[in-house]
Amino acid sequence: MRERFKAWLKIEVRWGDMDAFGHVNNARYFTYCESARIRYFEVVGLSEHQRDKVGPSVVSASCNFRRQLRYPETLEVGARAVRLGRSSFTLEYGIFREGSEELVADGASVVVWTDFEAESSTALPAALRARITDLDGLRDG
Amino acid sequence: MRERFKAWLKIEVRWGDMDAFGHVNNARYFTYCESARIRYFEVVGLSEHQRDKVGPSVVSASCNFRRQLRYPETLEVGARAVRLGRSSFTLEYGIFREGSEELVADGASVVVWTDFEAESSTALPAALRARITDLDGLRDG
Amino acid sequence: MRERFKAWLKIEVRWGDMDAFGHVNNARYFTYCESARIRYFEVVGLSEHQRDKVGPSVVSASCNFRRQLRYPETLEVGARAVRLGRSSFTLEYGIFREGSEELVADGASVVVWTDFEAESSTALPAALRARITDLDGLRDG
Amino acid sequence: MRERFKAWLKIEVRWGDMDAFGHVNNARYFTYCESARIRYFEVVGLSEHQRDKVGPSVVSASCNFRRQLRYPETLEVGARAVRLGRSSFTLEYGIFREGSEELVADGASVVVWTDFEAESSTALPAALRARITDLDGLRDG
Repeated sequence: MRERFKAWLKIEVRWGDMDAFGHVNNARYFTYCESARIRYFEVVGLSEHQRDKVGPSVVSASCNFRRQLRYPETLEVGARAVRLGRSSFTLEYGIFREGSEELVADGASVVVWTDFEAESSTALPAALRARITDLDGLRDG
Repeated sequence: MRERFKAWLKIEVRWGDMDAFGHVNNARYFTYCESARIRYFEVVGLSEHQRDKVGPSVVSASCNFRRQLRYPETLEVGARAVRLGRSSFTLEYGIFREGSEELVADGASVVVWTDFEAESSTALPAALRARITDLDGLRDG
Repeated sequence: MRERFKAWLKIEVRWGDMDAFGHVNNARYFTYCESARIRYFEVVGLSEHQRDKVGPSVVSASCNFRRQLRYPETLEVGARAVRLGRSSFTLEYGIFREGSEELVADGASVVVWTDFEAESSTALPAALRARITDLDGLRDG
Repeated sequence: MRERFKAWLKIEVRWGDMDAFGHVNNARYFTYCESARIRYFEVVGLSEHQRDKVGPSVVSASCNFRRQLRYPETLEVGARAVRLGRSSFTLEYGIFREGSEELVADGASVVVWTDFEAESSTALPAALRARITDLDGLRDG
């Protein structure tokens, strides 16, 4: 399971991540996935391709909460592209306890390359597509 | 679209809900949906059926981000059950700008009636099923 | 107590504002004060005086937590200037339960008019000083 | 400066900690201090002295924001007791960039040993006082 992911981020659960149920709040898992997404962007050098008015935007996100988490806990979150289209790609996230194979949660989000001025999607830069394809062994298309 | 929802909550976007992109952060939409879920629980009197070790837990959540939001903004969030099973139900959320028909985002979450000690699902109380069925006109089953 | 404040904001406590102690998290009170500060800025028209590289920055903040809060709760937060200097002013916040005289918490923050490029303080625009003086009956100086 | 602190915590700034100004949000510094406080509690074994209805509560908090922070950044936060009274103590926090002597922010909070049922302060357990005195070289009293 873990070997599917090439881009990784270690996350320390903060005490303040817990809610009144005494567990890590559901919305916080999306913050963890966001941190992993930013990490993935760094790994594929996405920022080099961003322009003032053109860049990534997330159009949907989902998460399956498989285990309840509490502070203290160290997590390892993997991210990988599982689909690469003309102007968008889908990232999948795996949240694990440090050094464990047990999947605590898994999530996904669709990232659209966006012209923020025209408020419309636009083609992903070829060099960025190549980096994503290289990293995650995706067939482009 | 709006008339589908019987349970509603008004939410003021806080300045601090925005992230470094200058828009409401994606994870915050899940907090909005959480607030609407808590509201839905109030409307169907869910807390009357909670026991010390038995209650609702969210096993999955998703959201489609259709419009970018900024402070200041007043939202109206509707929640409704769209599926009712033996031990779980699915809530759907619609996030609207105040007084508008435009869907800013929509989400869903699966709520499982959980025996927290046994760490397993358990049957929804009949009276709670009846309230959900009544409110949202679901066929039980 | 309440009549000291001219600028007001109503805040709904969100369920997710609570932490593992089952009370509103301490850090969240600073978010409430931040919301009230933004409201104060709106009341005195601060944004008209902001430039690309010149604007307000908060250099210190404090809060006294007098009552523990839980969801559901509606708060009214007042903000007022209590000191106005050449390049900074001090805001004081009063957090009340809706319709109540009871002070749930009070806070303060020092706002410095900042040249972000030079990374130094700079004189407050005269028109902004006048608005603050007018609103809160401060003797300028 | 750093050698004053015996209890330390490493904190990774999360991308989501930034607000619409593109800097770490002010309220988030209080979350960092909270994490350091929880760490301090662990170092002095505070939880051994907690009872169901008796434990610590924070009655005030303050922070001086000396440097603006952005993601990515690794922080080291130190905590120490600077005052120890009959039923309360004051913690001071120093937030540093990893491996740097530069103080990014400093804060303080007053922790009161509280009987939550009686809603009043109560004497700190002697063994806890001893641990705090030992760790931070405070003269008890």
